[in-house]
Amino acid sequence: MEERYTIGCDFGTLSMRAVLVRLRDGEVVAEETFDYPHGVITGQLPESGVLLSGPGWALQDPDDYLQALEHCVPTVVKESGVDPAAIIAMGVDFTTCTVVPLDEKLVPLCKNPRFRDRPHAWIKLWKNHTAGPEANDITRIVAQKGWHTLDDYGFRASSEWFFSKILEIIRKDEDTYRQTYTYSEAGDYIVSQLVGKMVRSGVLAAAKGLYDNVNNRYPDKEFFRALDPRMENIVEEKHLDNIQQVGSVAGGLTASMAGRLGLKEGTTICVAHADAGCALPGAGLVQPNEMLFVMGTSTCHMMMAETKEQIPGMFGVYYNGILPGYYAYEAGQGAVGDIFDWFCRRFVPQSYYEEADQRGIAIQKLLDEKAAKLKVGESGVIALDWMNGNRCILQNSELTGLFMGLTLSTTAEEVYRALLEATAFGTKVIMDQFAAYHVPVKGVYACGGLAHKSPVVMQIYADVLGLPIKVSAVKQTSALSTSIFAAVAAGSAKGGYDDYATAVSRMVKPPKREYFPIPENVERYQKLFAIYREMHDLLGKEGSPMLRLRELQRECL
Amino acid sequence: MEERYTIGCDFGTLSMRAVLVRLRDGEVVAEETFDYPHGVITGQLPESGVLLSGPGWALQDPDDYLQALEHCVPTVVKESGVDPAAIIAMGVDFTTCTVVPLDEKLVPLCKNPRFRDRPHAWIKLWKNHTAGPEANDITRIVAQKGWHTLDDYGFRASSEWFFSKILEIIRKDEDTYRQTYTYSEAGDYIVSQLVGKMVRSGVLAAAKGLYDNVNNRYPDKEFFRALDPRMENIVEEKHLDNIQQVGSVAGGLTASMAGRLGLKEGTTICVAHADAGCALPGAGLVQPNEMLFVMGTSTCHMMMAETKEQIPGMFGVYYNGILPGYYAYEAGQGAVGDIFDWFCRRFVPQSYYEEADQRGIAIQKLLDEKAAKLKVGESGVIALDWMNGNRCILQNSELTGLFMGLTLSTTAEEVYRALLEATAFGTKVIMDQFAAYHVPVKGVYACGGLAHKSPVVMQIYADVLGLPIKVSAVKQTSALSTSIFAAVAAGSAKGGYDDYATAVSRMVKPPKREYFPIPENVERYQKLFAIYREMHDLLGKEGSPMLRLRELQRECL
Repeated sequence: MEERYTIGCDFGTLSMRAVLVRLRDGEVVAEETFDYPHGVITGQLPESGVLLSGPGWALQDPDDYLQALEHCVPTVVKESGVDPAAIIAMGVDFTTCTVVPLDEKLVPLCKNPRFRDRPHAWIKLWKNHTAGPEANDITRIVAQKGWHTLDDYGFRASSEWFFSKILEIIRKDEDTYRQTYTYSEAGDYIVSQLVGKMVRSGVLAAAKGLYDNVNNRYPDKEFFRALDPRMENIVEEKHLDNIQQVGSVAGGLTASMAGRLGLKEGTTICVAHADAGCALPGAGLVQPNEMLFVMGTSTCHMMMAETKEQIPGMFGVYYNGILPGYYAYEAGQGAVGDIFDWFCRRFVPQSYYEEADQRGIAIQKLLDEKAAKLKVGESGVIALDWMNGNRCILQNSELTGLFMGLTLSTTAEEVYRALLEATAFGTKVIMDQFAAYHVPVKGVYACGGLAHKSPVVMQIYADVLGLPIKVSAVKQTSALSTSIFAAVAAGSAKGGYDDYATAVSRMVKPPKREYFPIPENVERYQKLFAIYREMHDLLGKEGSPMLRLRELQRECL
Repeated sequence: MEERYTIGCDFGTLSMRAVLVRLRDGEVVAEETFDYPHGVITGQLPESGVLLSGPGWALQDPDDYLQALEHCVPTVVKESGVDPAAIIAMGVDFTTCTVVPLDEKLVPLCKNPRFRDRPHAWIKLWKNHTAGPEANDITRIVAQKGWHTLDDYGFRASSEWFFSKILEIIRKDEDTYRQTYTYSEAGDYIVSQLVGKMVRSGVLAAAKGLYDNVNNRYPDKEFFRALDPRMENIVEEKHLDNIQQVGSVAGGLTASMAGRLGLKEGTTICVAHADAGCALPGAGLVQPNEMLFVMGTSTCHMMMAETKEQIPGMFGVYYNGILPGYYAYEAGQGAVGDIFDWFCRRFVPQSYYEEADQRGIAIQKLLDEKAAKLKVGESGVIALDWMNGNRCILQNSELTGLFMGLTLSTTAEEVYRALLEATAFGTKVIMDQFAAYHVPVKGVYACGGLAHKSPVVMQIYADVLGLPIKVSAVKQTSALSTSIFAAVAAGSAKGGYDDYATAVSRMVKPPKREYFPIPENVERYQKLFAIYREMHDLLGKEGSPMLRLRELQRECL
């Protein structure tokens, strides 16, 4: 058999990665990454220098995405030496919900000089948090009306959502709203550039856009009118149409893009996927009730199941959100690696950095080693991991982090270990919630930077959860996954695969490593978790001293 | 009038300081300090190398005290150029309760080769905490018997106390106990070396030794028998006699010591005082109901009043404990400057140290400056200052420190400021307890290293308490005070003074600086304090998650 290949393009928060994968065995023949030149725009707009007032802004420049694509794809093709004719398909996964306002020609509005100095004409990254009031209004309105619109989404709207972001635009910059032909998820925007037309992903629409993939519809006009009368007909007026389900073909690569990317015209392009949700097949998961932790700066918890349960405090449950035919369950923690990094940068003294330098290792590696030497519970320190709020199950961005158990002999590595443990406890709270709502988790997998680089973190998670955890074989799990989706979209007729089980069995290697719980630690962590949980419930509830402290802080700002 | 002088010798935890003071105006003509060569002995005994097993040990070497005396006194005499005949008296203040086991010749037992390798023959410094179980037993026995022995001491015994320490010795090393002729406070031991006989201080006996200065008696035999039958006759058997009240003359300097110190034989030596309790006159306080904060690594809160109230959670109230004729009230916080120092050493990154170095200032000075720029409540961070337990009013050494309100944007200076504020809140809890038990505090003074070197700390205290705070004119307040006690002990006949009011009016300069509360800050701190107080009560109570966490830690050790 002649070798066939697909390309997976994984667009993250700060960079894009492309992998060129051999379909026979999943070998990553070439890979390339590209950092977005503008990164995340938080302070002022490029060129115009317009200041972004207040906190929470996180914008991006669409040219960064295209530059990344036009750098990485030709590079992997060239480096691999593979004949473009053997590359049968390409897929894209993207952060979500990242919203691109577009004109009728599918050009981002912010590229038009008329709109370039308007913040609300720019791409709002998933973590743009300026639409907090709008999210609260959506939650309130739905509750007042007695609607069930949010029941599948933990009963609360998020400032990160598609319609929270658009409601903010219409309120703050109605003219930009009116001049926008359509709003798209950034993943869909990339696909539109590849195939020359807008083909939307049902995954992205359902995950953060309230789209119902079972009945193929958005919420009705009454819902949008209640948000804002001007939004009543948003679905038609802003052309939120042509939604395709996961794994389907969006179209063939245009001649013009084929030329720019060094691929063949007509190469199969599949609909976009979400960067966390897509990762399951790449980590070897094609079965329901096995959970994947995508662990990095933050953590996503993704799982498929055959039935739908409405679990309070989750991000959401939506059909066809991971693989077709299953409900996708999504939960998450707003900061994980970010917390460890924050602590290392801001609270670790020089002697540790000197030791790490002398040994030629990263600071986190050194702290991992020191933390690993501590017995469970030995430090007497416990933390709450809410330095970026709590996204699940309390869903309150006003919650804050906490250290307890400090004494004059407490060291940096003791606090660091408490932070590692706190994030594991946070994951346990989420899994306990799944269990309480009768959604069994039968196995746990992990991927992402943290899962690969920190054995101490993974051992702590296994001990805290009392479950074995399988770490995916490759680091670039999402990109590999996306190449699998491309292979199935292409199908066996073109040299790909016709189903995910076959594709995964061929293209995914066995887990790199499995972490097993250590019984003695499991027992101790049960006791420590009881204390974490008590503090969680005590300080996480409405009117708690923690939340009142935050209110006082707001009064001062 | 011919100039007259006295010398005040202030024995602290790590060093001794002597000041030679001119009686006419309180001018410190010369001063000298001396660091104890052995410092605090915590790991193993000198020479024998015997290991001190377990935590909590804090021993000292008696030769360090005598070396300090024989270095500092001749130095100040020489440097001042004053004729020894013009030096009419000398006084000593000392940490308490620091216990010296002595033989019949008043030689410390640990100097005898027979006892040199026995930890319980050494001097136990005030902060030797190995007698925790004994203190708990004393508290329990007194409660079971329904006795009132502890009513004047916050209703709880401390591991730092005289009889807790002795009970530990009899339990763990009975032979050493039997071979000991007498136990003395270290202040009394120094005085005994100066005057050639044991003259005990009523201040020291009452503060930590349960001695009743009104009725001039120790608890009765029944109490001691209940502690341990072997202690029934301890007062007689261990010669706990010859107790003199504060300000009285212990005797004249012996010829031998006069030679070694460069003073005249017969120079008046007054009875010893406590290092914190003695400080009030030196800070200008001779009136009741004015409180002095002695602020350093820890803080003591000392006040005189005309009446006795039993305040739960205080260290104690005892007659003649500061100036004669008044009740002394004593409270304290186990760690204050120690907490700031711990944070700077263990949790402040290199960039801060580099900035401090470049500017040629201490790290705490830099953090003080950065902290001072923050508005009250702006950081949203709050702390509990229990990194060394809580001594008042919860009196629980198992309590631990806490940070709450941490976010990914929290900086080191924000946490540092929260620590400064937490210690001020801790002081407010103590003062609120005084108010609740009808002991009014009409004015606040401060002395000690922290009061002199950190304006931001003092402003925070003024704002948190809502009261002006006067900082003493001189840094060496205790040593100056002790020279005042010496001047009054000598009396006007010898060129001194006959009463404290006159002595203080002449010898103490007006406060160095007064900090006034800023109304806007006072208001904000009331709200922040309410949150501190809620966390204090929530986590400080029995069975709290904080205390259960500590129990889990103990299980692991």
